[in-house]
Formats: sequence, C-alpha cells, structure tokens
Amino acid sequence: MSGFELVGSETKWRGAIISAGVQHFRHADGAVVARDKVWHPGAAAVLPVDDTHVWLTRQPREAAGMAASLEIPAGKLDIPGEAPLACAQRELAEEIGKRAAHWEDLRAFYTSVGFCDERIWIYLATGLSDADDVELEADEDERIEIVPWPLDDLDGAIAATEDSKTVIALLWLALRRARDGG
Amino acid sequence: MSGFELVGSETKWRGAIISAGVQHFRHADGAVVARDKVWHPGAAAVLPVDDTHVWLTRQPREAAGMAASLEIPAGKLDIPGEAPLACAQRELAEEIGKRAAHWEDLRAFYTSVGFCDERIWIYLATGLSDADDVELEADEDERIEIVPWPLDDLDGAIAATEDSKTVIALLWLALRRARDGG
Repeated sequence: MSGFELVGSETKWRGAIISAGVQHFRHADGAVVARDKVWHPGAAAVLPVDDTHVWLTRQPREAAGMAASLEIPAGKLDIPGEAPLACAQRELAEEIGKRAAHWEDLRAFYTSVGFCDERIWIYLATGLSDADDVELEADEDERIEIVPWPLDDLDGAIAATEDSKTVIALLWLALRRARDGG
Repeated sequence: MSGFELVGSETKWRGAIISAGVQHFRHADGAVVARDKVWHPGAAAVLPVDDTHVWLTRQPREAAGMAASLEIPAGKLDIPGEAPLACAQRELAEEIGKRAAHWEDLRAFYTSVGFCDERIWIYLATGLSDADDVELEADEDERIEIVPWPLDDLDGAIAATEDSKTVIALLWLALRRARDGG
C-alpha cells in the first residue's frame, strides 16, 4: 500500500451541480492509472430526533428514478465557505422547520469512492424546537413532504429508504438504541 | 406526492465506466425540471463473515483522494446480463479468494440519489471456504490488500472506513449482533 500523485486532470463536461471528466494518477510503483471522475461540492445531512420521532422528508429523485424517496434532511455545500455544520443547521430549518439545541458530529462518508469525490457529513440534532421565522421549502415546493417517523418503527424506515445517507443515519440510530436497550 | 415522466435526455460525455449529461422530467403539476445525471451500471457487494472475522479489502481510491480505503469486496455490474448475486459471488472469489455456502440478500441502496442511478446490492456471505482455483486480483495488483478484521472490533472497522457500501454493511452487522446479544 502506498500513495499516488495526480498527474493529469481533464474536465469534459460542466453541469449545474457536478462536473465530469478524467484524471490520471501515478502510483509509487510507477504505474499510471486513468479514472473517470465526477466532481461534487459535497453535502451536509441531519438526523433530527425527538423523544418519539425521527424527522424525515419524502421527495421525488428523478435521476435515480424514484417517485418518493424517504430521506433525512440534507443539502449540498453550495455556499462558498459555509461549514458543513452551518449547512446542516440551515437545512434543518428550511426542510423541516426546526432548530436544535444539541448537535453531535455523527460521521462522514463518500457516496461512491470509485469515481466521485462527494463527501457527506451527517449530524445528530436533538433538543428540537420550531423555527417559526423560517420559510419552509415544502411551502414553495409541494413535492417535498415532511414525514415524522415513529422511533418505535425505525426498522420500517430503514426498509423504506434506499438513500445512502439515510440508510447510514438510521442504522446508526438503531444501533445506538439497541445498545442502550432502547 | 406524485410521479413524473422523462421528457428529454442528453448524454454530454461518455467515460470508461460512467456517462454524464442532463435529463428533463415533467411532474404531474406540469413543472419541468432539469437534473444533472450520471449513468452507472450499478454494483454488487459482499459482506463475508466467519466465526471470528469479517473479510475486507484495502485499496487506493484515487477519485476520492484516498490512499487506503477499507471496503467490503465489490464489483461493478459490467458483464451484460449478469445478475447481482452472481457478480457478488465472482467478486468474493476474485478479491478475497473465498466461496460461501450461504448467501443472504441483505439490502440494496442508491449511492447518490440527487444525480446518479448507481444502485448497489449487498449480500451477506457465510459458510466460507477457500476458492483455491481462482486467481486473486491481489496477486495481479499489489495495491489491493486482503484485510481479515476481527468481529470483536467491528466498531473499529466502522470508524476506519468512509465508503458508503461498507459503512452500511458493517452497521447492519453490528446491529444484528447487538440485537442477538453477540
């Protein structure tokens, strides 16, 4: 196992959110490899939990062919210089209409390590209260639905989603509850 | 919540593995939305577990900037017509040098629902035995390392990886063990 260095990078297409192209890397053993590459700004996601519910959204995900994807609130890091935690706090307010008194850095992960640099930071948000002064995205976009899901049926939510960040956050929560005897 | 229909699709670039472009969708309310789109063939992954270890790999993931990514064995669905389970069985033999007597359909997920159609099927493989007749990829590529990880330290593996399929598979295993009192 050893490192590698970037020896070439060509952007072939720039979309609204992502760019795509090819990068070449030289490994310590001299071998040069080519990799398809998608550049993505990254994202922040929130697992909002109160005493009885986890707060989710349901929305169409056209690119993945899903009419109603069950997800934790999240947003792209599309404001230059905004830290992932600040983005997560903004998304919790805009998507769910909540603020949180307590924020815990849950973990980060890469969505697809073979070709993409998208990294998602996940935070646990507790001590929830209503953010009455924030305009909800759901009010502007009737295709986003807020879904309070009972903690007693976490397994149902885990089975009902196929979204990577949501599967990870809900499995993490189920594991914590199993170990706490919750 | 309602459905949508695809009304336009333009491939802007074709890479070795992925393609990228733009798709347009019309929702039931008449709104037409544009989405960046990455086409990916999908992948199959295996969680190989024996009485004492989970079998992982460590390899460079250049596109994500990782020198040594800890992962469950996996491979793209790049053979036309090959079912995900058959792909998983092939990858277990080629990456880890094992066969499995028992296969359990663990779950599937989408890596990044906002722009990509990549879906990964994960299988639990138990009843492991050596596949002596298969040439290991690690023998051809010294950058792939086989890593038997002690089940007693699953939390260590969960903390040591940032790969979506691996985080999901290991959290799932930790949850099953926590509920079984294991």
